[in-house]
Amino acid sequence: MKRIAIEFSYDGTNFFGYQSQTNVRTVQGELEKALERIFKTQIRTYAAGRTDTGVHANGQVASFDCPIDRLTETDIRNAINANLPDDIYIRNVWITSEDFNPRYDAKKRIYHYFVNKSKSKDMFLRKYSWWFPYELDADRMRKGATFFVGEHDFVSFSKKGDDDAKTIRTINGLRIIEMRKDLILIRVEGLSFLRGMVRSIVANLVRVGTGLWDPLTLEEVLESKDRSRSAGLAPAHGLFLYRVLF
Amino acid sequence: MKRIAIEFSYDGTNFFGYQSQTNVRTVQGELEKALERIFKTQIRTYAAGRTDTGVHANGQVASFDCPIDRLTETDIRNAINANLPDDIYIRNVWITSEDFNPRYDAKKRIYHYFVNKSKSKDMFLRKYSWWFPYELDADRMRKGATFFVGEHDFVSFSKKGDDDAKTIRTINGLRIIEMRKDLILIRVEGLSFLRGMVRSIVANLVRVGTGLWDPLTLEEVLESKDRSRSAGLAPAHGLFLYRVLF
Repeated sequence: MKRIAIEFSYDGTNFFGYQSQTNVRTVQGELEKALERIFKTQIRTYAAGRTDTGVHANGQVASFDCPIDRLTETDIRNAINANLPDDIYIRNVWITSEDFNPRYDAKKRIYHYFVNKSKSKDMFLRKYSWWFPYELDADRMRKGATFFVGEHDFVSFSKKGDDDAKTIRTINGLRIIEMRKDLILIRVEGLSFLRGMVRSIVANLVRVGTGLWDPLTLEEVLESKDRSRSAGLAPAHGLFLYRVLF
Repeated sequence: MKRIAIEFSYDGTNFFGYQSQTNVRTVQGELEKALERIFKTQIRTYAAGRTDTGVHANGQVASFDCPIDRLTETDIRNAINANLPDDIYIRNVWITSEDFNPRYDAKKRIYHYFVNKSKSKDMFLRKYSWWFPYELDADRMRKGATFFVGEHDFVSFSKKGDDDAKTIRTINGLRIIEMRKDLILIRVEGLSFLRGMVRSIVANLVRVGTGLWDPLTLEEVLESKDRSRSAGLAPAHGLFLYRVLF
């Protein structure tokens, strides 16, 4: 039995998040259904990150044990893609070590968040970006971003109900990139994140970008360790799990 | 009663085309439903182009007579947008002359068609481009495109069942633009087009781009006036009515 790693993308629009749940459509659920159709047996998968409802992925990674040894990586890729719905797509398949676990072996997770600040709604970005039709000063956002980089207690920037006992995380990189007129990409890199942490960081950077908050306010919110002082969460549909590095 | 012009975009994915039909969801149907909700009376709209099922628009234009005179252009824009579903969006509203008719007064229609030639499916372009994961030589396509520019009988490049008696049309511009790695934009400009004509031109250019056809073949197909010699139609979901000029 070979352990297989898959890198895949999905459009989060029509899923109730990544993780399997009974009676609702989830990414993991659809993936495991496809594997069961192919291998005629139930297959458990393990993913690098559990994205929330509405969040997309360019390069989510999962592993599973393949019950048929003679299949090549290309065979597996084609077989899964042929059995998946239109909104999940396997990009890469590789044979990995027997003890590979995407969640624990990940060295870096990169998230992308798109903010569309155009006055006019972009019909074709509406499911893949946060439409925020106001002035945003990217340089102010960059100043604010500096406070997040490094090791901090991010409890102020996590979702209520996060069951994680330890709220210290490290952000290795946080860039504000002006993609084209009116489209801003916020790129966040770190080993792991609290629930809602990227969306919270985005909402707080946007608050600074509008001019309502001084960049320094982010340092205060961070140090307060008080969730009620944060600017809340940016909408899920602007967020992409872009890449997982091992 | 003022005549109003509106410029609007829509995502064609979930419409059975532009034109009203009973019992199916169409762009015109949704637009007229919104107007009826606002003005409490049935309002007829007239559009510059009737896009087929699955075709999108960045800048479709339509006109209607507004029964309430005191409304500003902004009032009208906001009222319609508030009553439209998520996949139609009014970009601009302006008061126009009493005899304005977008269909007959249009001076130029610009269509955009996107071909994604990436080996890997792009999850986020899948509804807005033709995924054609093969080599395409943009320079060969440009050579082929020269035969379409100018006034020609385009019957070979129209949809069977087009009821247009006159099949002579003029293409003012046809450009092949490499947008970014693996994404090709085909931009077509003309006063008016036969049904399926842009999608047929795209399919034929792509046939040339693969190397299967010599660019000169397009001249032969054009001159043959024989629809059966054409390479068929590119899928609807890659096509956008980009702009209408008056």
